[in-house]
Amino acid sequence: MGVDIGGTNIRLGIVDDKGKILYRKRFPTLKEQGKDEVITRLLKAIADVKKNSKYPIRRIGIGCPGPLDSRKGIVLSPPNLPGWNKVPLKNIVQKRFNLPVVLENDANCFALGEKWRGAAKGCKDMVCLTLGTGIGGAIILNGALYTGKDGFGGELGHMSINFDGPKCGCGKRGCLEAYASATALVKRYKGKQNVTSEEIYKLALRGDRRAKKVLKETALYLGVAISNFVNAFNPEIVVLGGGLAKAGDSIFPEIRRIVRKISLKPLLRNLKIVPAKLSEDAGIIGAAWSVKNL
Amino acid sequence: MGVDIGGTNIRLGIVDDKGKILYRKRFPTLKEQGKDEVITRLLKAIADVKKNSKYPIRRIGIGCPGPLDSRKGIVLSPPNLPGWNKVPLKNIVQKRFNLPVVLENDANCFALGEKWRGAAKGCKDMVCLTLGTGIGGAIILNGALYTGKDGFGGELGHMSINFDGPKCGCGKRGCLEAYASATALVKRYKGKQNVTSEEIYKLALRGDRRAKKVLKETALYLGVAISNFVNAFNPEIVVLGGGLAKAGDSIFPEIRRIVRKISLKPLLRNLKIVPAKLSEDAGIIGAAWSVKNL
Repeated sequence: MGVDIGGTNIRLGIVDDKGKILYRKRFPTLKEQGKDEVITRLLKAIADVKKNSKYPIRRIGIGCPGPLDSRKGIVLSPPNLPGWNKVPLKNIVQKRFNLPVVLENDANCFALGEKWRGAAKGCKDMVCLTLGTGIGGAIILNGALYTGKDGFGGELGHMSINFDGPKCGCGKRGCLEAYASATALVKRYKGKQNVTSEEIYKLALRGDRRAKKVLKETALYLGVAISNFVNAFNPEIVVLGGGLAKAGDSIFPEIRRIVRKISLKPLLRNLKIVPAKLSEDAGIIGAAWSVKNL
Repeated sequence: MGVDIGGTNIRLGIVDDKGKILYRKRFPTLKEQGKDEVITRLLKAIADVKKNSKYPIRRIGIGCPGPLDSRKGIVLSPPNLPGWNKVPLKNIVQKRFNLPVVLENDANCFALGEKWRGAAKGCKDMVCLTLGTGIGGAIILNGALYTGKDGFGGELGHMSINFDGPKCGCGKRGCLEAYASATALVKRYKGKQNVTSEEIYKLALRGDRRAKKVLKETALYLGVAISNFVNAFNPEIVVLGGGLAKAGDSIFPEIRRIVRKISLKPLLRNLKIVPAKLSEDAGIIGAAWSVKNL
């Protein structure tokens, strides 16, 4: 079973050995009701699926907003889940169902899902960005998730592309997240009220000048950041997910043009920059992958 | 044998199984005499050492300025060795001496040397910067050199920390190299003629205000860049080499202060930021390491 805990919805899926979702369930997170309520509802949903579906569940992988300690299975204090602080979610689920459980960062699950069944199938060296309220990141090197000494690496949204730029929520100046998240996009557009980033992509394709300008700037910010990753990692593929995966021609050609213009030439040889393919299933599939070979 | 080809000097050393240099030889590169002359002199020096030293040579590791294709053993077109273009240096040396040869990027050799015998002994996740005319970089992950899909990764000097900054030699704006290389330091100091970066460190420690200002700025640039690497890689150690390794208290405390201030907190748990230890021997020792387990 793969579980994808998001700020808005929680998704469960029973996933087979080939990464196909056989059965799925979705319900609102209702995070404002507090940590205990959310966990109670999550445990009940898992129990329901376990009881009602015809497929046996052997292991449970859980993707959750970070920061979290995957090795110990503890959710630390995600800005996206207020009130959660050092929650031993892995142990809680493991004890309740007596099954092996893995807890993994949601951006990492997203990357593992796209690698298993999505845009990066068969790729060994991959950089992933998920662009939403914030910007998540994940790095897959030599075919495996890379998370660093203590398992906290991959925070690619908090790479500064301007040491003198606007202050980011993390305390640093000019982070990619402060320039290119969906939130930043909407803020820069300032057109009508309540415009979403996805509406901005559509407006740009329809010729809206302000939308086009905002996306051109965003392509520059993303292009510089991606080129930084390319020069450092020499990946074969960069996968962009979240709302941006649906932006298509309104921004991808310009991102690719900038990356090609400013990256070191040998590093461009085999580089692909593509939108994510699995949409909201990537998290479930990647969470399932993380327990596949336990 | 480890060979370290630099823009100014070429160094050879016979290195034992433990990374100790048993015998060494150094001579000027004289790169202005052209590629063929340099290679002829290199081959002669290796032959002399092989003939005259009492130690048997079993393998030869060569560190050389990049970009180069380590897998094919070809030097591509290093800005630091004008006139070298697609030189199959590995084959040339291999044929002449009938010994296994590895060709590796000089910054990678530096990192391998520091890991084997220097400041990063026993460390598994490490980021290395060498600050000289330019800025080289190397990444060691899970105990092994990481160079990416085609082997060109680790170009950490070409990470932009200001998308709107001064143009770098590579074509991109605001690269770390354009802000924090020895060249950039000297340019910003503009004090007396012919001041070197090492003199600037000494001037700062003696209270020279302009030198102190230049180093404070440099610490900010390096701090932002290192924090970007820390957020992405979660390394246990960052090693700074080249002239900067001798800067000591004139800049290291300020670099550490900035990195601690702006990096994501969980990533700082076990982080060390230290000067390189082996000075000019790191290249020889790391080149030897690269052939150790052939």
